[in-house]
Amino acid sequence: MRAPGGGPAPARQVVNVGDHAIGRDFVIIAGPCAVESEEQTVETARRVKEAGAHLLRGGAYKPRTSPLDFQGLGDEGLRILRAAREETGLPVVTEVMDARDIEKVSASADLLQVGSRNMQNYTLLKELGRAERPVLLKRGMSATLEEWLGAASYILAGGNERVILCERGIRTFETCTRNTLDLSVVPAAKAASPLPVIVDPSHGTGRADLILPMSLAAVAAGADGLLVEVHPDPAHAKSDRQQQIKPEAFSDLVRAVGDLVLHLRTR
Amino acid sequence: MRAPGGGPAPARQVVNVGDHAIGRDFVIIAGPCAVESEEQTVETARRVKEAGAHLLRGGAYKPRTSPLDFQGLGDEGLRILRAAREETGLPVVTEVMDARDIEKVSASADLLQVGSRNMQNYTLLKELGRAERPVLLKRGMSATLEEWLGAASYILAGGNERVILCERGIRTFETCTRNTLDLSVVPAAKAASPLPVIVDPSHGTGRADLILPMSLAAVAAGADGLLVEVHPDPAHAKSDRQQQIKPEAFSDLVRAVGDLVLHLRTR
Amino acid sequence: MRAPGGGPAPARQVVNVGDHAIGRDFVIIAGPCAVESEEQTVETARRVKEAGAHLLRGGAYKPRTSPLDFQGLGDEGLRILRAAREETGLPVVTEVMDARDIEKVSASADLLQVGSRNMQNYTLLKELGRAERPVLLKRGMSATLEEWLGAASYILAGGNERVILCERGIRTFETCTRNTLDLSVVPAAKAASPLPVIVDPSHGTGRADLILPMSLAAVAAGADGLLVEVHPDPAHAKSDRQQQIKPEAFSDLVRAVGDLVLHLRTR
Amino acid sequence: MRAPGGGPAPARQVVNVGDHAIGRDFVIIAGPCAVESEEQTVETARRVKEAGAHLLRGGAYKPRTSPLDFQGLGDEGLRILRAAREETGLPVVTEVMDARDIEKVSASADLLQVGSRNMQNYTLLKELGRAERPVLLKRGMSATLEEWLGAASYILAGGNERVILCERGIRTFETCTRNTLDLSVVPAAKAASPLPVIVDPSHGTGRADLILPMSLAAVAAGADGLLVEVHPDPAHAKSDRQQQIKPEAFSDLVRAVGDLVLHLRTR
Repeated sequence: MRAPGGGPAPARQVVNVGDHAIGRDFVIIAGPCAVESEEQTVETARRVKEAGAHLLRGGAYKPRTSPLDFQGLGDEGLRILRAAREETGLPVVTEVMDARDIEKVSASADLLQVGSRNMQNYTLLKELGRAERPVLLKRGMSATLEEWLGAASYILAGGNERVILCERGIRTFETCTRNTLDLSVVPAAKAASPLPVIVDPSHGTGRADLILPMSLAAVAAGADGLLVEVHPDPAHAKSDRQQQIKPEAFSDLVRAVGDLVLHLRTR
Repeated sequence: MRAPGGGPAPARQVVNVGDHAIGRDFVIIAGPCAVESEEQTVETARRVKEAGAHLLRGGAYKPRTSPLDFQGLGDEGLRILRAAREETGLPVVTEVMDARDIEKVSASADLLQVGSRNMQNYTLLKELGRAERPVLLKRGMSATLEEWLGAASYILAGGNERVILCERGIRTFETCTRNTLDLSVVPAAKAASPLPVIVDPSHGTGRADLILPMSLAAVAAGADGLLVEVHPDPAHAKSDRQQQIKPEAFSDLVRAVGDLVLHLRTR
Repeated sequence: MRAPGGGPAPARQVVNVGDHAIGRDFVIIAGPCAVESEEQTVETARRVKEAGAHLLRGGAYKPRTSPLDFQGLGDEGLRILRAAREETGLPVVTEVMDARDIEKVSASADLLQVGSRNMQNYTLLKELGRAERPVLLKRGMSATLEEWLGAASYILAGGNERVILCERGIRTFETCTRNTLDLSVVPAAKAASPLPVIVDPSHGTGRADLILPMSLAAVAAGADGLLVEVHPDPAHAKSDRQQQIKPEAFSDLVRAVGDLVLHLRTR
Repeated sequence: MRAPGGGPAPARQVVNVGDHAIGRDFVIIAGPCAVESEEQTVETARRVKEAGAHLLRGGAYKPRTSPLDFQGLGDEGLRILRAAREETGLPVVTEVMDARDIEKVSASADLLQVGSRNMQNYTLLKELGRAERPVLLKRGMSATLEEWLGAASYILAGGNERVILCERGIRTFETCTRNTLDLSVVPAAKAASPLPVIVDPSHGTGRADLILPMSLAAVAAGADGLLVEVHPDPAHAKSDRQQQIKPEAFSDLVRAVGDLVLHLRTR
């Protein structure tokens, strides 16, 4: 798939991850919120690959509001992600929360995620500027576009130009969704920066029933890719139960998104 | 055009305006922010009709932050709207701000708009419940979905079931856009109510360069129509200069939107 | 009591209501959210007067999110307010929602309230510019200071200079309070306008336990008065049960506020 | 000074810093936004001590939106803070941004600040749970009370119970102030947690003219202390020029705050 819209190709930054040229090819990243077990992760990886996902996501380190909440499997989670990659060939995206873990996480991941809570953790951003992996930078929960691009420029300034932006919903007064997915920031970010922009409708809405329409909307707004939470049994997930979708629903989503990307690229 | 998505047809409310079945047919409403002169309005009406618009919008009464700002042409504006309708055959949408004006405005308009500032003007809503015209109810600047549907139910309770919801952006901290267009409210509103939902990307973004991508995104999110501000000479408009687009750009938008609606309806 | 802070006296607008010079004297307005019965209203009026309130508030017309919620007693509510005024001598504040009711409400009220939902109901504001009563203009739920002063100027432009601003909390993401009381808007409004500014900690917080500290904070921030919801039996009130306080608690509040005003005026 | 309000003393956590029992004594922390030079910092320290400040603040490491903005003097800044402490005897508060710097910063500071951007930097919070210094935890720009207390519990869970909360304004749509100072969170936090709560009116408003009224309001709302930015020459400061006040204005503030604390403690 080629990304729809986006203006003249040479002006835009393309970030290669595995065989995928993000910013030129449309990419779909999928997988569970958290790595919970080898079985759950490898099964999900197989299913999302079959459905057409390009990369596997899964959290080994989980930033949670309370220290009593499930914090992720840590190093064991990284081992499981490597096993899933070996099994499926899917490149892996996972979050790094500590600058001291960059090297270790880089051994298990092809793309390093900075979570919303750490968007302005400048210690982490500066070290990622010297990392050998590309970075997926999620927008902070109440970050302006200017602050988001400012955070990205901390990584770029360190010499790592492989940065991908990810919109994941912002805080507003509205309570019918977990966050308010700000799709207008997609074309606004692309007007202000050459970096690819992908969209996470799972955190952006917090509602399984809104993932499909908002994925299509993200594509139409000009996003370069999607980040979707998929779990074989969402009702028993250790986190984000309301927003993870089943592999079957994900499969339908990939088809609809693929058709839409093709439509927008060929008209 | 037929509206994309939206679930089983019989369950949904269809609101007829002129020949258009809103909620079943995809509709595009276009025209200037304000009626400024007969020439400007009639010219715009002709141009948007040629481009494929289904209804004409234009404000005769303008709710403005300051009493020193241009307040609209009032009754003369209504006369001009009638002239534009006669000239082009396009049904007219215009805002009514005062319950005492409903009858008068109904003589010139086919669809009565309640603006964001009046979403909870219950006096006005109750009287619209007895009006003979359908109503386009814009979401308040910081209204939750629950409050918006509550406002609609004031009109429905009066016996007027011809209500169309219009998302037009909400207030957030982000300053790179005038408002934050909340497209996730489109499928959320349709999950909670049978009423049609249209989207206003002009007020929703406040930026001419974002109108096209956000119009496409609205379609993909499942909107039943669009409300777009078009002005023959945006730089000299009496209001909303940053967000009105020229007829040429509108023409491209109609084509792209039409193709997308067709794609989504036929896959 | 004299109002604390507020800069050189002659520059500020003073609005007389009954014997009270609002903007010079510190005023406390108290009473139930809604007029529910003559007994409830007259008893509350007696109790708040004993405690030291200067004006009585109470809603006869209630703007509610749903048409199924209690809408107020209407004309019968106005009659009860007159009875309470006769009984206690307290001037009355009540909301007017419909421009056509201004004359009728003016016969029962000494101060006309414009509610948050109607802050930009310009039809109403323009007619209040010709009213013979002073106006208490509540800030919209997401109104900027500029929009709030713009709304006030619609009334002023009509020739009615007796306008009092009332901060009542704004919409944010925070859910531990009903709204976020924005006390910094008090000195900001007084820096930008000569109008008196009072504060409503009841709607501003939605929590009975926060009314006292936020009342004191409002005084310290330079407010010219308070609007406090008091009900003889909050648990059985027809609206706003979480935020109405009992007459005993109100009595303590008046003493603490009075002492603080005195402290700030005399140091 | 003793802190006003706050309920029964034994139930509340007291955090000792130098001779000050924060949570029991009312404390005023003052100093420049950033350490710019030894002369500027030592002069400010002397002036704020004379005026009655209890602790000195000053940033050696500055988290800034862009990597091109002034980033602070770093280690040299820490040396200057030690010099200012030696000169004046004032305990020092400064921000730590990197978990690896905790030991180094602890050698120069008596109280370690976690800035808003790092409120959910759980790596940092967990290590501070093992630090030997007390921690001042600023609220994130859009953090709910629940998330703020969750962040605090990461430090507490590590065994460090010396945590002080600091409200510094939240993000809203309002643009007349830099942030919206949420004073209702002060009594709400104290109702939900035994930790002391102080208020930063400088970042909370971003306007020098609002520092005094909002400081008084914070005291009246039940705050246990204040954090105020003071600079000998705000117009030439390297950051936060609009919100730093001069030593003379600070001196007036200390007197007014001290009188108010005394009033509230003794009535």
